[in-house]
Amino acid sequence: MNPTETTPSRRIDHIEPFRVMQLLERAKVLESMGKKIIHMEIGEPDFNTPQPIIAAAKKALEAQNQFYTPSTGAPELQQALAAWYQSEYQVAINPARILITPGTSGAFNLLYNVLIEHDEQVLLPDPGYPCQRNFIRLAGGSPINIPVDATTHYHLNAERIANHWQHKTRAALIINPGNPTGTLCAQAQMHAAIDVCHQNQGYLISDEIYHGLHYGATADEKPTTALALDDRAIVVNGFSKRWAMTGWRVGWVIVPEELIDPCRRVMQNIFIAAPTLSQQAAINALTLTDELEAMRLAYDERRKYLLNELPRLGFNVVVEPKGAFYIYANVSAITDNAKQFCHDLLEHAGVAITPGEDFGTFHANQHVRFSYATHLDDIKLGIDRVRHYLNL
Amino acid sequence: MNPTETTPSRRIDHIEPFRVMQLLERAKVLESMGKKIIHMEIGEPDFNTPQPIIAAAKKALEAQNQFYTPSTGAPELQQALAAWYQSEYQVAINPARILITPGTSGAFNLLYNVLIEHDEQVLLPDPGYPCQRNFIRLAGGSPINIPVDATTHYHLNAERIANHWQHKTRAALIINPGNPTGTLCAQAQMHAAIDVCHQNQGYLISDEIYHGLHYGATADEKPTTALALDDRAIVVNGFSKRWAMTGWRVGWVIVPEELIDPCRRVMQNIFIAAPTLSQQAAINALTLTDELEAMRLAYDERRKYLLNELPRLGFNVVVEPKGAFYIYANVSAITDNAKQFCHDLLEHAGVAITPGEDFGTFHANQHVRFSYATHLDDIKLGIDRVRHYLNL
Repeated sequence: MNPTETTPSRRIDHIEPFRVMQLLERAKVLESMGKKIIHMEIGEPDFNTPQPIIAAAKKALEAQNQFYTPSTGAPELQQALAAWYQSEYQVAINPARILITPGTSGAFNLLYNVLIEHDEQVLLPDPGYPCQRNFIRLAGGSPINIPVDATTHYHLNAERIANHWQHKTRAALIINPGNPTGTLCAQAQMHAAIDVCHQNQGYLISDEIYHGLHYGATADEKPTTALALDDRAIVVNGFSKRWAMTGWRVGWVIVPEELIDPCRRVMQNIFIAAPTLSQQAAINALTLTDELEAMRLAYDERRKYLLNELPRLGFNVVVEPKGAFYIYANVSAITDNAKQFCHDLLEHAGVAITPGEDFGTFHANQHVRFSYATHLDDIKLGIDRVRHYLNL
Repeated sequence: MNPTETTPSRRIDHIEPFRVMQLLERAKVLESMGKKIIHMEIGEPDFNTPQPIIAAAKKALEAQNQFYTPSTGAPELQQALAAWYQSEYQVAINPARILITPGTSGAFNLLYNVLIEHDEQVLLPDPGYPCQRNFIRLAGGSPINIPVDATTHYHLNAERIANHWQHKTRAALIINPGNPTGTLCAQAQMHAAIDVCHQNQGYLISDEIYHGLHYGATADEKPTTALALDDRAIVVNGFSKRWAMTGWRVGWVIVPEELIDPCRRVMQNIFIAAPTLSQQAAINALTLTDELEAMRLAYDERRKYLLNELPRLGFNVVVEPKGAFYIYANVSAITDNAKQFCHDLLEHAGVAITPGEDFGTFHANQHVRFSYATHLDDIKLGIDRVRHYLNL
C-alpha cells in the first residue's frame, strides 16, 4: 500500500495558505543571497516585549507553578482583565465571562466551534483578515464575504448585515481598527450593527485586537469596546499587538453568560488551557502605560510618514487609516495587477508588501497593504526604493 | 430581543464535559470547608517542571526574542527532536515532519481537522481518553468506540480494527502506555495495527504522550515509537507528562510527508504557532536524563504500593499496568455502581478517583481509575481512608 493513496479531506482544500507566505519565502531566498529586504508585509509588531513583562515572567518562573490553569483561564487574569475593562472603558464585566485563550486565533477557533453548525454562515467584510474565512470553514461553516468600501470605512454596517442575513446565518464580524485597512468604525455604526444581529437572533463579534493602536481619532471614532455599546456583543482581544506579546499566545474572548458553559466544554478539550506563564506575565502587562504609549507614538510617526509619501508615488489612500499598523492603498494609477506588482517590487526593489488578494476578492487586484510594524529607518529606505523602482 | 434566543449549535450538545470535573468541584467545596482531599483523579504530574528547564526559560527571556516562530515550529526544536528520536529510538526522521503544537490537545485538534471530513470516522478504544471523542466530534466526524478488554491489554489490535473499518473510516488510535488503563501494547500488536490501517488506505495514530513512563516492561512490551515499526504511522507526543511541563503547552505530531503542507495551512490559522518561550525551553528539556529518571522511579514506587494494596481492598487489577501513572480497577466486588461509589468515596472518605464512565461505556460502571500523580504520603493516606470506608 502506498500512503499517498490516503489523501487529505476535501475541507482542507478550501483552507487557503497565506499567499504572502510565498512572498516571504522568496524574500528569505533573496536575503540568503545577501540582499536586504524591507519587510512591510508582516502583521507582527517589531518591538520586543516590554521589559517589565519579561521581568514579571522571570519572577513567575521562580515561583515554581507552571501547572495547568483552569480551562477558562487563571482566575487572577480574568479578574485583572475585568478591572482593566473598568478603567479602560468604564464597563463592568463579570470576570467569569472573560475566557482566556491561546491568542485570538484560539479564541476564534473556539468561538466558531461553539457558534456554528455544519453549513451555517458568518458574515465577514471583504477585504478582511484571511484567517477568518478559514476558521469558519474548519468549523464546517460557510464564510459569507460581503464587499465593503470607503463609504462605510471598509467595515460592515447594519444595512449590509441585514441585507445578507439568511436563515443559516449565526453571526457577523467587525474588526476595529481594521485589518487590512487600518480604518476605524464609528461607534454609531458599530452600535447599529450589534442591534441588527440581535434582531436576527445572532451575534455581533467585535475583534478588538488592534485596540489601543489608534491615532487622531475623533470622539465618535475613538474605538471603545463593543461591550460599552451593548452587553450582548462578543468581544475578542489579546496581548499580541498592543503589548507586543505575539509569541506568548495569550488572548481572550468575552461571551454572554449563556455561552460560558459551552465554551468551557470546548476549551477543556482543544486547549486544556492557555500557557500558564504567559497568563502570569499578562497580569503584569495590564499595569503598563508608558511603554504602550511609546510604541503607539512610534507607530503614529511611521504612519504619518507613509501617508505623506505614498500618494506622491501613486498609491491612493481613500480613507485615512487611524488605527492598527496598516495602510490599504489603491494601486490603479500604477498597475492593473496588484499581485504581479507585489512580486515585481520584491524581486526588483527588495520591498515586500501584501497584495490585496490575501484579504478577499472585492477589488483585490487594485489594492495592496503596507504594514508599518517596521522601524522607520527601514520604511524610509523602502519608500526610496519604491520611488526609484517607479522611476519617479 | 433576548440573547438566550440564540442557542449554541447542536454539535456542542455532543461535547461532553469531563464528568470528573463535577467531582473536582465538589472536592474544592469540601476543601474550602477545611477538609483534606486526596487527589487520585488528576492526570497531571505533581512534580514541578525540572529546574534546568526553568533556568533555560529564564535565559531565553533575556535574549529578547519572543516573536512568533514559524507555524510548524522553531526549526531548532524540530531538529532537536529529530536528534532525540535518533538517540531515544534509533529512528531517523526528517525534522520537517515534526510539527510543533500547543500541547497534544493542539496536535489532535489539528490532526482531525486535516484527516477527517464531515461524518467520517475514527476508531477509538473504549475505555479511552475522553477528549478523543470530542476532538473528532468538533471536527464534524464520528468517533467509533470499540470495546477493548484484558485480552488485548485494553488496546486496539489488527483484528478489531479490521472488523470495524468502514467506507468512511479514516484512522484508528492507539495510546500506549494507555489511559485510563496504564497498560502497554506489545510491539507486534502495534505493528499489525499499523499494517491493517494502511491496507484500508487509512492512518494509525500512535499517542505516545506517556512514553518514558514505563516500569518493568519486557522486551516486546517496551514502548518504542510507532515510527520505529513503520514509517507511515502518525505519532503524537509532548512535554507535559514525562517532562512535567503541563502549563507550557508544547507538544508535537510527526506526519507523513504528504500531510506536512495540509497541516501547515491549518496551523497558520488555528495556532499561528506554539508558545515561543515554551519551545525554547523544550530544547533544553530534551537534554535531561537524571531528572526524568528520578520522576519515573517515584511513579514506580507509588505504582508498586498501590498494586500491593488495591487487591486487598477488593479492587481487581486484571492486567498489570506498566506505564503512565494510572491503574484501572474492576470494582464489581465492592459495588455495582462505580459512579455512585466514586461520589460516596469523595463525600465520606475524602478520596477522589475517576469513575469508569469518563472513559467510555464498555463495562464503565464496573471500573474506576486511580492516578498516582500524587505524592506517596498522600496515596498512603488515601488507601487508609478507603480501607476504613470499606470497614476492612
